[in-house]
Amino acid sequence: MSVPHPIVQYTSSASWAMVEDKFSPFAKETLANLVDFFENEIAPARKLAHVQLPTDPIKRWQTVVPVIEELKVKAKKRGLWNLFLSKAHYPEYGVPLTNLEVCFIDMRLWLSCLAEGDILRHRLSTALRQTRATWAKVLAKYGTPEQQKKWLIPLLNGEIRSAFSMTEKGVASSDATNIRTSIRREGNEIVINGHKWYISGAGDPRTKLHIVMGKSDPGNKSAYNQQSVVLVPADAPGITVVRPMTVMGYDDAPEGHCEVIYDNVRVPLGNLVLGWGKGFEIIQGRLGPGRIHHCMRSIGVASEALDTMLRRVTDPSRKTFGKYLYEHGSVIAEIAQSRAEIESARMLVLSAALQIDTYQAKGALKEIGIAKFVVPSLALAVVDRAMQAFGAEGLSQDQHLAEMWSNLRTLRIADGPDAVHLQQVGQRELKRAPELHKQAATRAKMEDALFTKAGIKKAHL
Amino acid sequence: MSVPHPIVQYTSSASWAMVEDKFSPFAKETLANLVDFFENEIAPARKLAHVQLPTDPIKRWQTVVPVIEELKVKAKKRGLWNLFLSKAHYPEYGVPLTNLEVCFIDMRLWLSCLAEGDILRHRLSTALRQTRATWAKVLAKYGTPEQQKKWLIPLLNGEIRSAFSMTEKGVASSDATNIRTSIRREGNEIVINGHKWYISGAGDPRTKLHIVMGKSDPGNKSAYNQQSVVLVPADAPGITVVRPMTVMGYDDAPEGHCEVIYDNVRVPLGNLVLGWGKGFEIIQGRLGPGRIHHCMRSIGVASEALDTMLRRVTDPSRKTFGKYLYEHGSVIAEIAQSRAEIESARMLVLSAALQIDTYQAKGALKEIGIAKFVVPSLALAVVDRAMQAFGAEGLSQDQHLAEMWSNLRTLRIADGPDAVHLQQVGQRELKRAPELHKQAATRAKMEDALFTKAGIKKAHL
Amino acid sequence: MSVPHPIVQYTSSASWAMVEDKFSPFAKETLANLVDFFENEIAPARKLAHVQLPTDPIKRWQTVVPVIEELKVKAKKRGLWNLFLSKAHYPEYGVPLTNLEVCFIDMRLWLSCLAEGDILRHRLSTALRQTRATWAKVLAKYGTPEQQKKWLIPLLNGEIRSAFSMTEKGVASSDATNIRTSIRREGNEIVINGHKWYISGAGDPRTKLHIVMGKSDPGNKSAYNQQSVVLVPADAPGITVVRPMTVMGYDDAPEGHCEVIYDNVRVPLGNLVLGWGKGFEIIQGRLGPGRIHHCMRSIGVASEALDTMLRRVTDPSRKTFGKYLYEHGSVIAEIAQSRAEIESARMLVLSAALQIDTYQAKGALKEIGIAKFVVPSLALAVVDRAMQAFGAEGLSQDQHLAEMWSNLRTLRIADGPDAVHLQQVGQRELKRAPELHKQAATRAKMEDALFTKAGIKKAHL
Amino acid sequence: MSVPHPIVQYTSSASWAMVEDKFSPFAKETLANLVDFFENEIAPARKLAHVQLPTDPIKRWQTVVPVIEELKVKAKKRGLWNLFLSKAHYPEYGVPLTNLEVCFIDMRLWLSCLAEGDILRHRLSTALRQTRATWAKVLAKYGTPEQQKKWLIPLLNGEIRSAFSMTEKGVASSDATNIRTSIRREGNEIVINGHKWYISGAGDPRTKLHIVMGKSDPGNKSAYNQQSVVLVPADAPGITVVRPMTVMGYDDAPEGHCEVIYDNVRVPLGNLVLGWGKGFEIIQGRLGPGRIHHCMRSIGVASEALDTMLRRVTDPSRKTFGKYLYEHGSVIAEIAQSRAEIESARMLVLSAALQIDTYQAKGALKEIGIAKFVVPSLALAVVDRAMQAFGAEGLSQDQHLAEMWSNLRTLRIADGPDAVHLQQVGQRELKRAPELHKQAATRAKMEDALFTKAGIKKAHL
Repeated sequence: MSVPHPIVQYTSSASWAMVEDKFSPFAKETLANLVDFFENEIAPARKLAHVQLPTDPIKRWQTVVPVIEELKVKAKKRGLWNLFLSKAHYPEYGVPLTNLEVCFIDMRLWLSCLAEGDILRHRLSTALRQTRATWAKVLAKYGTPEQQKKWLIPLLNGEIRSAFSMTEKGVASSDATNIRTSIRREGNEIVINGHKWYISGAGDPRTKLHIVMGKSDPGNKSAYNQQSVVLVPADAPGITVVRPMTVMGYDDAPEGHCEVIYDNVRVPLGNLVLGWGKGFEIIQGRLGPGRIHHCMRSIGVASEALDTMLRRVTDPSRKTFGKYLYEHGSVIAEIAQSRAEIESARMLVLSAALQIDTYQAKGALKEIGIAKFVVPSLALAVVDRAMQAFGAEGLSQDQHLAEMWSNLRTLRIADGPDAVHLQQVGQRELKRAPELHKQAATRAKMEDALFTKAGIKKAHL
Repeated sequence: MSVPHPIVQYTSSASWAMVEDKFSPFAKETLANLVDFFENEIAPARKLAHVQLPTDPIKRWQTVVPVIEELKVKAKKRGLWNLFLSKAHYPEYGVPLTNLEVCFIDMRLWLSCLAEGDILRHRLSTALRQTRATWAKVLAKYGTPEQQKKWLIPLLNGEIRSAFSMTEKGVASSDATNIRTSIRREGNEIVINGHKWYISGAGDPRTKLHIVMGKSDPGNKSAYNQQSVVLVPADAPGITVVRPMTVMGYDDAPEGHCEVIYDNVRVPLGNLVLGWGKGFEIIQGRLGPGRIHHCMRSIGVASEALDTMLRRVTDPSRKTFGKYLYEHGSVIAEIAQSRAEIESARMLVLSAALQIDTYQAKGALKEIGIAKFVVPSLALAVVDRAMQAFGAEGLSQDQHLAEMWSNLRTLRIADGPDAVHLQQVGQRELKRAPELHKQAATRAKMEDALFTKAGIKKAHL
Repeated sequence: MSVPHPIVQYTSSASWAMVEDKFSPFAKETLANLVDFFENEIAPARKLAHVQLPTDPIKRWQTVVPVIEELKVKAKKRGLWNLFLSKAHYPEYGVPLTNLEVCFIDMRLWLSCLAEGDILRHRLSTALRQTRATWAKVLAKYGTPEQQKKWLIPLLNGEIRSAFSMTEKGVASSDATNIRTSIRREGNEIVINGHKWYISGAGDPRTKLHIVMGKSDPGNKSAYNQQSVVLVPADAPGITVVRPMTVMGYDDAPEGHCEVIYDNVRVPLGNLVLGWGKGFEIIQGRLGPGRIHHCMRSIGVASEALDTMLRRVTDPSRKTFGKYLYEHGSVIAEIAQSRAEIESARMLVLSAALQIDTYQAKGALKEIGIAKFVVPSLALAVVDRAMQAFGAEGLSQDQHLAEMWSNLRTLRIADGPDAVHLQQVGQRELKRAPELHKQAATRAKMEDALFTKAGIKKAHL
Repeated sequence: MSVPHPIVQYTSSASWAMVEDKFSPFAKETLANLVDFFENEIAPARKLAHVQLPTDPIKRWQTVVPVIEELKVKAKKRGLWNLFLSKAHYPEYGVPLTNLEVCFIDMRLWLSCLAEGDILRHRLSTALRQTRATWAKVLAKYGTPEQQKKWLIPLLNGEIRSAFSMTEKGVASSDATNIRTSIRREGNEIVINGHKWYISGAGDPRTKLHIVMGKSDPGNKSAYNQQSVVLVPADAPGITVVRPMTVMGYDDAPEGHCEVIYDNVRVPLGNLVLGWGKGFEIIQGRLGPGRIHHCMRSIGVASEALDTMLRRVTDPSRKTFGKYLYEHGSVIAEIAQSRAEIESARMLVLSAALQIDTYQAKGALKEIGIAKFVVPSLALAVVDRAMQAFGAEGLSQDQHLAEMWSNLRTLRIADGPDAVHLQQVGQRELKRAPELHKQAATRAKMEDALFTKAGIKKAHL
């Protein structure tokens, strides 16, 4: 047997064996590069990054964490930059990686949460954001050359950041027709009025662009032609970043998920994207890969939590009554359970990714849906067991577990709550019913023939 | 049927019917008084109390929340003061309420979390504290008249607060023999050196007393005579409150659960409690009632979460696709599940309380243990469903659900993690085995006689 | 403390303490009498009863088990007869026991499954039967003196048995308007045509009476006046008992749950019960107490399963690798879990029973519903753990566990599947919403006043 | 895209996509052949096979089901014979299929339960048997030419059957040193005395061979050299097949899992296999592939159960209150849950199979263990939901669900109960601890360097 790929140390050899032959040489090299970068640069920098972010409620929103800026430079040098942009979708800027390949990258990168918007740009932005690729999609796919020059290039270079502004306060937003923000033309200008929240990145000092979705034609007969998307400079008069919304108590500074008011904000006509009424077209379909990359990240988080738990329960200084923690109660069974959940979650996400690569997101909705409602819950269970193994310390700032849990918890809501995905997967299964009824009828007919031939009267059975 | 007691609006009539005849007239009156006070004074003050606590990381630890001080005065006037002190245990200061009766009070008071140390004094102090009654027990039961005069009276009056200092950093503290803090005599003084954490209340500006547990005689042959308890003024030289430990991201200011260093802290000999080597005697047995009151509080929290969920799923402004939230998916089943869990949790705690009242904590260890490992998990599940029903908002500061969840999560650890209680209850069941083997032998003998009489040979069955 | 009641050996002292003061002296005496009878007569006879039932597929349906007939005589002598008939509902024949009191009797009697129809008459008839009291209700409450003389007296004496014939083959019977069996008058006769199944008792050689529900007036505008109930002798021409339906592989002979065809069965007009179109009135409301008695029986079953497990895991002859079974893995935690589930299930059923006693079944629908969807699942989990502790033997005929499990499994369906009860309880909770919205509005108003008074502007929180 | 392989109709296209490139052309053809054979021959014959097995408790053990004999002939003709024998292990007789490939075959063949010993020989023998390949391993790998001629050839031809006799009554058999059956030499004969049970196949009229494991050298210092294996003709004097052990009420005739007594059974010396004291060597390692094939079969069962449920909930004749069953309560969510569980179970088994193919069973113990403790429970949950959707009928003989469930339940015990596999997987994870401690130390060192470089003192974090 040959030397195993370095990624195997973080995954099971079983799951790697299942996909290895589907990886390009480029993907394997990139992955090895990343594993090395992660272990030698990202992992050791995590605590420093935490410390470099002030606790002061004002200053933490004005800070650019130095160690992350250094990591950005290093990542660029190693070619680990903008990996999330698929060449298939963005030929000009993208990297030739499939969704399956990117899954393993995501799984390893979870740890760079703090760094997300920077090191590998928006890949690992905190939860509740719309999706990592929204700005890329909007600008790289639909932007005019002017828009691209002004916003896309600096975004790709990591010089500025953006906020995608969609979710609205007081609105049941899973039904998109409920959107209320108004976008209307006045002469050569577009005027925006609305009240949004959970706008990820809006609190960041480097954010220079809001990509705002609103209703431009509420009376349009087609519910899917009422929306438009507009580019709004972050410093435009009339924008108020009201406050960060906390998530399970965390403010996720400096990025944050902010409440934002647009009060008669005016931008030039040229800031419209793609065209009037094209809002839905722009955002649709964007969620497929994003969803499973969230899932894969969850698996990385869960793996780290299990490793953390393993260290604790084998720590000689935590012995009680002469026994290691793992020798008490059900600890070993819990570890086995966690391992099993991680492996089954991983395989679900990998098959969803492969399905997307083969059939596009539309042909993979069942697999994406399953991953979406299964994986975050499994990961939460794994992290919860790890917290419990640590006692009070497990819930504190001295371990990352509480923050992990809180972050994962959002994934049962972001990009559609569990219930929505359960319904969609269930509905999709129901579509198999006609075929199954037909099959049953065919079998029954053949069965009858067998009974007749055997001279037996078919009764109740 | 007569008019139901006002508490019924917050509980099921079924559980009230089960215990009503066990309530004294005083308990019923007090409970009605409390329900009224809660609804008209505490509930409306909650948000103001939140706002009156600054977000500044320094100032929030120096603040006495005005609205809570006002509530304290009102509570005293209504006779709702120091209710947690049982007359049975503290004849001089206590109130004639049984544990069963106090359960209902706890269930209703959960909401006054912020106010806990004040309105009803330490009853509802945040999780991870040792127990609400520790200071009362230490001082009222074991204190000298001098100690009582100096500390107990102002504590009972709500003028000062205390911190019980037991848990140690880096120590597997569920095995009490691991304690390392040193308490030794030097002439007429006691010298204390140690490193503690999770010291609830140590951050509060009103805290004037640390009650410190440590090892005074590490070489003593009996592991239970090595510890002593000493009273330490909060401003004694050598005490450093290092930092608050956060719990799932919350700092629980101004009380907090702090890391504290005692570096050659000196107090007079007269600050020793009960005697040298009496530390274990002082703290033992203290956890029984505390544990179930935590549980009952959990049930109050879960009930409020379910009510909150009910309001959301019936809110016309949250309709999607023309349907109320409750008309989607499994929402109704989840509500039913939550109601069932609340009721079963409540009955478990009530029977544990009654058992304590009848047989003392020692005779109720099985019931206490069951409540302890069952109830917090059920309550967490209820709150989690409510969070999910709210979407992202459910995890934010605009609803109390995230804070509730985080607070409840500590109860699976505080006063012994779930696993410890599972083991203890399981071990207690195993003690029934000899009796069961005997019963089986007796039955088998009678069985044989029946077979013989019937003339049938007993084979495999 | 006084000597505990003998029932305490089978329950927790905690649950008995909760209800003891609600028991009449008669109930306490009867319960003590029953405990003694159970331990000395029923328990030892169980295996013999099994052996006395032939395995031959024909003969087992023609057998009256001798040891059960002997137990019937003994039970009558001790006054333990027809205990299920409540004096409140059947003044002439009944026993003065409340539902709460009967719960404890049920819990202890579960073991007499085989004997059920006999020893204490229909109380513990196997699952999927309509309900223990159906024939009593139909005859004692609605029967004419002639009907009572002919059928009720011998039923009460245990000389004959009956079958309640309601569920229909191929019909979604949870919607009662779907019933298809035809009951029509022809001159002085009633003619019955229909295809029923799951008719409990129809296979028993002692069954002399079918109580048949059918449609007598399908065109009636009121869906609740279309049905009638008719008394049909078991040997009437036209009745075919087609086969027993097995339940998880068990045929439950000699009683069984049979498929029955009524082909032009004719009975005299006098066999109509109460009147034409009175079918619904007769059967409605009958399920409340029946449902919780099933639940209480489940708890008895689960308790015995846990005792069985305790014996196994402490059996020295089952040691492996030098350790008792209970010293391996999570066995102790599983035992604790089972004990907790049994106690919480018990308290739920007891409060439902008390609620019925206080408010009638109609006023206790929430409590009944909760018990119904919670308790059987908990009991199944307990029995499943016990099976697992025994290994292969646990699934075999050498232990009662497999049969227990299979029997309990039906209770998640009988008298309405879990889902129906979840919906009903959930709907009932939703009715609290208007009150909760009102309360929230009141609180908000008081809150606003507090903010105004404090001179603070109320913002987002 | 090309035409999908016919197996896709029974699996998800996602899981097939993951492995398709690992399938040989022979495997793909065989699989297509099997799918066709299954759909057109096996599925329609199932009910007839049931009917052709008498219900009489004696005759059902003497019957060779005609339709199964016909299917055997057809299967041989189509080359679907002895597929379970891997060419890798049995070059002379085997088929060139990997474990991964065989997984899909198993998944499809679950339905031929009744036929198992025949159509594809021992592949799908009912649960609790030792393993499908035991006889093949014993004879093909270790048998002398004489032994092979006499027993192996007719076994391979399906003319006779065998029983592997290992589990002992009253013995905690998971600890193999507990085995008590005595195997000793007397002159030219071997004498066997022992009491076994759960001997699968011992009840079958076609069984001509018992392969008996026992202790030949109890005093041997090595616990692994005390055992020997002997071939015993089924009609040898001294063998008594006492009774079949039922499994959740099912007797699994005509094969059965029987209790067998060996009372001074004598066979010639030539019937010893491999050599004295070689018993452990013979049986060790045999369980790996067997375990996952059981798991894969579970997935086939679960898939069929879900299909059955889908048919029911979309059946117009089961509407209640004007709605399809799937429109009520949580049915759609349950379907989605079942689909997710099936897919995750499938991926776990497939990766275990691939791991065996790559690293042998020994190198795949973690993956096998995970599959073993996860998959049967998931499958049971799926079948349980399907039963529940059917109401009482779901538990009856008119649907296969109750039998499926009962059969699956054994898999949580057979080949090691869940708890054993949880422990083994957990222990295996614990072995990663030293590496994790080392990694943590390395990271901490690099972290310190970063802090130093940044001029920041590293405190608590």
